[in-house]
Amino acid sequence: MANTANEVKSEETPVPEAAKPKAPLQNVILIGKKPAMNYALATIIQFNQGANEVIIKARGVAISKAVDVVEISRRRFDESIKVKEIKIGTETLGEGENVRNVSTMEITIFKS
Amino acid sequence: MANTANEVKSEETPVPEAAKPKAPLQNVILIGKKPAMNYALATIIQFNQGANEVIIKARGVAISKAVDVVEISRRRFDESIKVKEIKIGTETLGEGENVRNVSTMEITIFKS
Repeated sequence: MANTANEVKSEETPVPEAAKPKAPLQNVILIGKKPAMNYALATIIQFNQGANEVIIKARGVAISKAVDVVEISRRRFDESIKVKEIKIGTETLGEGENVRNVSTMEITIFKS
Repeated sequence: MANTANEVKSEETPVPEAAKPKAPLQNVILIGKKPAMNYALATIIQFNQGANEVIIKARGVAISKAVDVVEISRRRFDESIKVKEIKIGTETLGEGENVRNVSTMEITIFKS
């Protein structure tokens, strides 16, 4: 019982943020129901505030909009924005009879 | 004039298909208005017919469905399916006053 993964994880939790200086400053933008332009502006602001990378996350039908956000950010605002990585996956939502799978996407972008 | 890239390219054109055995057999599935399951079945059929890679292409709102197709193919039918590459871009559609930009996505998958 004493050596379960959960126990180990809880011991790691108290490490202070200042002890992890090497992680790049990443900012997540979660795509919802607002127009794509709003999220594109939020992306540009994140870069202007010093972010090295911005991760655009979306689920379900918002995935198309996530691609729009990256393309608008790149074409209208800053052509130095490049795609580093695109990940797709599946998340399970709901419980019991309402369980359903929804596709997810994460686009990591950076300024070259 | 005789050594331009175009000239060289046009000389290469007559090479018969049989002379290019090294190109992987790739099959493109263009995502449209049918249910995602239809395209997932088409994907599985392509692999069963010997395709090394299948490229799932989509534009605009169909991009979300393209991700669904990959996830359904992988989770329901064949867990050995892996994502090789995901490309995003923009295409310009229409002419004159009707010109508009639409986001595009290409997901290349293979069986590991």
